[in-house]
Amino acid sequence: MARLVMKFGGTSVADIARIRNVAQHVKREVDAGHEVAVVVSAMSGTTNQLVAWARETAPLHDAREYDAIVATGEQVTVGLLAIELQRIGIPARSWLGWQIPIRTDNAHGAARIQDINGDELIRRFGEGQVAVIAGFQGLGPDNRITTLGRGGSDTSAVAIAAAIKADRCDIYTDVDGVYTTDPRIVAKARKLDKISYEEMLEMASLGAKVLQTRSVELAMVYRVRLQVRSSFDAPDAPQGTGAGDIVGTLVCDEEEIVEQQVVSGIAYSKDEAKITLVKVEDRPGVAAKVFGPLADNSINVDMIIQNVSDDGKSTDMTFTVPQAELARAEDVIRKAQAEIGAKEIKTDTNVVKVSIIGIGMRSHAGVAKTMFQTLAAKGINILAITTSEIKVSVLIEAEYTELAVRALHTAYGLDGE
Amino acid sequence: MARLVMKFGGTSVADIARIRNVAQHVKREVDAGHEVAVVVSAMSGTTNQLVAWARETAPLHDAREYDAIVATGEQVTVGLLAIELQRIGIPARSWLGWQIPIRTDNAHGAARIQDINGDELIRRFGEGQVAVIAGFQGLGPDNRITTLGRGGSDTSAVAIAAAIKADRCDIYTDVDGVYTTDPRIVAKARKLDKISYEEMLEMASLGAKVLQTRSVELAMVYRVRLQVRSSFDAPDAPQGTGAGDIVGTLVCDEEEIVEQQVVSGIAYSKDEAKITLVKVEDRPGVAAKVFGPLADNSINVDMIIQNVSDDGKSTDMTFTVPQAELARAEDVIRKAQAEIGAKEIKTDTNVVKVSIIGIGMRSHAGVAKTMFQTLAAKGINILAITTSEIKVSVLIEAEYTELAVRALHTAYGLDGE
Repeated sequence: MARLVMKFGGTSVADIARIRNVAQHVKREVDAGHEVAVVVSAMSGTTNQLVAWARETAPLHDAREYDAIVATGEQVTVGLLAIELQRIGIPARSWLGWQIPIRTDNAHGAARIQDINGDELIRRFGEGQVAVIAGFQGLGPDNRITTLGRGGSDTSAVAIAAAIKADRCDIYTDVDGVYTTDPRIVAKARKLDKISYEEMLEMASLGAKVLQTRSVELAMVYRVRLQVRSSFDAPDAPQGTGAGDIVGTLVCDEEEIVEQQVVSGIAYSKDEAKITLVKVEDRPGVAAKVFGPLADNSINVDMIIQNVSDDGKSTDMTFTVPQAELARAEDVIRKAQAEIGAKEIKTDTNVVKVSIIGIGMRSHAGVAKTMFQTLAAKGINILAITTSEIKVSVLIEAEYTELAVRALHTAYGLDGE
Repeated sequence: MARLVMKFGGTSVADIARIRNVAQHVKREVDAGHEVAVVVSAMSGTTNQLVAWARETAPLHDAREYDAIVATGEQVTVGLLAIELQRIGIPARSWLGWQIPIRTDNAHGAARIQDINGDELIRRFGEGQVAVIAGFQGLGPDNRITTLGRGGSDTSAVAIAAAIKADRCDIYTDVDGVYTTDPRIVAKARKLDKISYEEMLEMASLGAKVLQTRSVELAMVYRVRLQVRSSFDAPDAPQGTGAGDIVGTLVCDEEEIVEQQVVSGIAYSKDEAKITLVKVEDRPGVAAKVFGPLADNSINVDMIIQNVSDDGKSTDMTFTVPQAELARAEDVIRKAQAEIGAKEIKTDTNVVKVSIIGIGMRSHAGVAKTMFQTLAAKGINILAITTSEIKVSVLIEAEYTELAVRALHTAYGLDGE
């Protein structure tokens, strides 16, 4: 007997037929003797309609009213799923954010969960009742409905799993697990059986869209074992055997991963923009004049590269920001241009960041060297480099993306059959 | 300065354009210096969609889940209306049933309001804030959402008006007031300026669909002055002057009605079914054998007529029930047929109940006589009669409905220009 949280997104509950399919997945776990809490999103499309109405009424609107409106999407789904579970003979009831309650801060539209009291849910597990919980929503200190913002249902599921001390939180999604890299680019990409929280966090923040970053952070903090698996599998398909019924990818503590790869995956992100300040004076304090104003404007600078000065007087300085922040960043830099003393400001969005990720790097030397050699052998120029304990990222021209990812996938021995 | 409750139904908030129109009605009252609580229904069609989903999932479903699902309709409308009011510069916030809270009993799907705490609403009136309140819903003793059943939003509005001690509760609907009779049948029907609670109750329960019976009962108990008026009037049209800005029909205490008519209105109801027991034994205790089982099955018997016995041994007994209960009533009677000793059971739904209503009847004799003479003069046969202090109802064949209503409207001097 285990205690499970099962989370289903909007496409998995898009209509009554799919809600029945979700109920069959739940039934399988209940029949196996598990205690189950299900967390669901709104039927796909519903939230968009609700958001459209709010925007049509007023483009700038009260976030508290917006939250009350969009939270109805999940409210409908939990009711329907509870009805369907009851129909097939499984005791179930729906729970809204304010009923549990899932307490959040007051940041309407992007609230953070602060506290969940799982006592009543656990008591009812003892009576054999399945909890069907509305994701994405909570109760603010103002006694009004809050929503958690983008990807919030994953976060709800993990937070609930932590609150009820679940043995595992299964995220049912439209892919069957986490891959060594994007299978659309690399045909030989392999599904990973296990990946550590740290690696998953790097994958998620680097553009692998399987899980929302916040939910992985939360899982890591509370040591919630997360499984990513497909909601399109037949509910009665054979489940994995042995290590906890894993059929997708388990995101877990690294100690649970016995055979560690040096590099677990290759990620890439197209959401990069490069800004180059040409012929900046090469003297102390220049960097502060560049990056101070950017920080003051909450612009995230990622990679920084400063070329060696040719003449000892001036140099080029290059850095990257997310594409969505490019316009603001450029504006900030142009205002400071005179003081910085840059001759020219150039921007380029035609770049991509490619990363190798693996907790094994900590104990292996020469991992980065393989990356640089592999890219050099393909004639790919590296524009910038950043590293962390478990990651090496390089900025390259966008047109080399697929070539680079495929070459690195092979070089680190990740290719499957 | 007055304190008003304004209630708008589903067709009045069917889309964003109509929600903007509702906001203009509210703005007019706010600009006039009034304190305003607005009660709204779901956008028309929304509730039907939600009900259809619940039924598709399972025809027999948990009423508590049903309530959570259908209550989302009003939740969306209050959010949108609050946003629109804010957009046009009126401080406003939405209130869900559980937030006020509107406490009800535990009869999910048809709950009754038990208590409303209006303190916080009143406090915010003092800050100039308009309360936008979800109709049709409340909070049950189980801490779950309840709905009030059909027409519940009218009841919500009246209950809130009582709780906040409003000077008036304006029900905005698709007609501009209460008429002396159905204008679709009688072209000369007149709009009433005022009608007493007692009369309105009879009108409502007899098929005039302007207001739900329960809301009128509640208004009478708490002496809430109700105005029925059209939501399709231009919001900036001239308002009534003098007696409380009444532009529609005021439902109020009879003492507020100076010039009372003997008969205020003519109502009719097609929702009648007649059951005749042929040749029932004419002996004591038979009535109990007929009506006891019906009462045990919660079937409402309305009119009863027992013919004079021809032979002193047997007689025919006729009574009416609502059409929706005919099948059940017939079933109950057939089971008891042997004991009752009826030779045959006949049913007929081709009947209609026509009523004259007026508090003036209490002090005027001969009112019923005029009714019987008028119908006789048109050759209309009366199948059954019931009376109350302020009402006389007759059962006639359905094909005479329009003829009877028109003749009575003229006979009691109700015809307008």
